[in-house]
Amino acid sequence: MTADRIGKLVVVGVGLIGGSFALALKRCGATARVVGVGRSRENLDAAQHRGIIDRGLTLDEAWGDELADADLVLLATPVGQMPSLFATIAPRVGAHAVITDAGSTKRDVIAAARASLGPAMARFVPGHPIAGTEHSGAGAAFEALFRDKQVVLTPLAETEPAALARVSACWTQCGAVVRHLDALRHDAIFAAVSHMPHALVFALMAELAARPDADECLALAGSGLRDFTRLASGDAEMWRDVCIANRDALRIELDAYRRALGRVDALLAAADGDALLRLFERARSARADWLESTRGGDEV
Amino acid sequence: MTADRIGKLVVVGVGLIGGSFALALKRCGATARVVGVGRSRENLDAAQHRGIIDRGLTLDEAWGDELADADLVLLATPVGQMPSLFATIAPRVGAHAVITDAGSTKRDVIAAARASLGPAMARFVPGHPIAGTEHSGAGAAFEALFRDKQVVLTPLAETEPAALARVSACWTQCGAVVRHLDALRHDAIFAAVSHMPHALVFALMAELAARPDADECLALAGSGLRDFTRLASGDAEMWRDVCIANRDALRIELDAYRRALGRVDALLAAADGDALLRLFERARSARADWLESTRGGDEV
Repeated sequence: MTADRIGKLVVVGVGLIGGSFALALKRCGATARVVGVGRSRENLDAAQHRGIIDRGLTLDEAWGDELADADLVLLATPVGQMPSLFATIAPRVGAHAVITDAGSTKRDVIAAARASLGPAMARFVPGHPIAGTEHSGAGAAFEALFRDKQVVLTPLAETEPAALARVSACWTQCGAVVRHLDALRHDAIFAAVSHMPHALVFALMAELAARPDADECLALAGSGLRDFTRLASGDAEMWRDVCIANRDALRIELDAYRRALGRVDALLAAADGDALLRLFERARSARADWLESTRGGDEV
Repeated sequence: MTADRIGKLVVVGVGLIGGSFALALKRCGATARVVGVGRSRENLDAAQHRGIIDRGLTLDEAWGDELADADLVLLATPVGQMPSLFATIAPRVGAHAVITDAGSTKRDVIAAARASLGPAMARFVPGHPIAGTEHSGAGAAFEALFRDKQVVLTPLAETEPAALARVSACWTQCGAVVRHLDALRHDAIFAAVSHMPHALVFALMAELAARPDADECLALAGSGLRDFTRLASGDAEMWRDVCIANRDALRIELDAYRRALGRVDALLAAADGDALLRLFERARSARADWLESTRGGDEV
C-alpha cells in the first residue's frame, strides 16, 4: 500500500457517510477492496448491490477477523456505538492499520478510543466530515457527498503524522477540504451551529405534533416550517447520541438561547418594535454576510 | 366589470406578494389595468419595467385619487403600515370597490380597517396568502407564486358575499386554493407554524452573530444551519410588524416552546438517552406524516 492507496478498507456503519466515503474512494481507485460492517443485513446487501462494498458482515458475525489485514478502518456509526466497537477492534486490528471515525462529536469518541485502543491509539485519527443530507442508509450514499465540503480532523498529541497524513489523503481524494481543530473547540462550535439547531427542531416538531389540533396547524404551514424543520428528519438515533455525548456544551448553548428568547419575549411584552426590528436586521445581515463569505461545509 | 374581471386593480405594496398577485391576474387576463403604490420610486419603476403595473405612484404622491374608480384594492405592505393606509383609503374609495389585504396577521388588520373604513368595511375581505420566498421586492415577484398554494380568507359577519366572491375568484385565478378561517383562530395557528419559527431563527442568528468567534463558528456550519436559518433572510420589517401585531399569540407560543426546551435540557442533564430518542423519533415521524399528508401552502 502506498500513502494514497488503501489496500483494504473496513467501514463500520455503511450509511450515508460511510457508504459515500467508500464509494468515493472506490470510484477514484484509491481503494481496492471494501468490507462493510453493520447492524442490518438488508442494508449491507443494498450496499453490496450498489458496489459500495465488496463484502458485508453484520455485527453478529466475526467481523473482527477482517481487521488483521485492514489498512484503514472507518467508524461511521452513531457515536454511542463507538465504545463497544473500539473494544472489539483493539485486540484484532493489525499493527499498521489506521483507524478513523466520522462522528459529529469528538471528545467522547476520543475518550472511548483511549479507553480501548492501547498502542493503536497513536494510529487513531478523530474526524468529522461536515457533510450530510437528512437521508440515511446505504441507499442514500453518493460519491460526491464530500466534494468541496469541509472535514475536521482533531489529531491528538500522540497521533502519528503518517496516520494523520493517510486519513487526510483519503478525504482529499473524496474531494473534501481538511481542517484541523482542537477536540474541545470542535465540540463547542458544533454544539452551537449544528447540535443545538437539531435539538431545537426536534423539540419544536414534537411539541407541535403533541397538540390536539396538530393536523389543522400543520395543514396550514408552508415551506418556511418545512425548511425550518428539515433537521428533524435526520437520523433520530444518531442525533440522540450526539446530543447526549456533547450534552455539556449543548446545555450551555440551550441556556444562552433560552435567555435570548427571553429577551425577545421582553421586547414583545413591551411592544418594542424598534428594538425588535434592529434584532431582526442584525440577524438578516449576519446571515447574508455568512452566505456570501463562506463556501463552507454542507451538513444536516 | 364582471364578477371575475377587475377593470382597475390598485396594489399598495408592489413587492413579492403584491407584485405576484398583479402579474398572475394580468397574465390570465383577469385585470385590465394595475396601478401600483409604494414607498420607493425605484421599486415602482422596476415593477412597471417588468409589466407588473401600468402606472406607479409613491405614497408621497396623490395615490388616493386612483381609488375613486378602482374595482379592487389590495394592501400588500407590512401590516404595521395598514392603519394609515386604511385612513387614506376610507374617504376616497369608490362605492363599489372591494378592498382586501395580504397580511400575515388578521385581527390587527381587521381592527385597523374597522377603525377607518366606515361603510366600506362591508367590502373589506381580510386575506392571507400562504406563499412566499425569502426574497422581497417587485424583482422577486413571479406569476406562479400562488399556484397550488393556500389562501386563507377571514371574512366577518358584515362582509358582503359579493365582495368575498370577488376576492376568492381573484385568488382562484392566481391558481390558489381558498380556505376560510376565523381571524382569531388564524392568528393562533400562524403564531405556532410561522411567526414563532421566524422569531426563533432571527433570535438564533442574532445570538450567533454577536459572539466574538462568530466568523469561525459560521465558517464551519453547513447546510443544516443554512436551511434552518433561511427564515432569517425574510423581510425584517414585515416580520417585525407581524410579531408585534400578533404578540399575544406569539408570546403564548414562545412560552410553550421555552418550556419544551426546558424539558429537553432536563433530559440532557439526566443523560436520559431513551427519553431523548423517543422525543426525536416522535418529531421525525410527525414530520414524515405531515410531508406525506399535506400538499399545503408554501410560505416563508
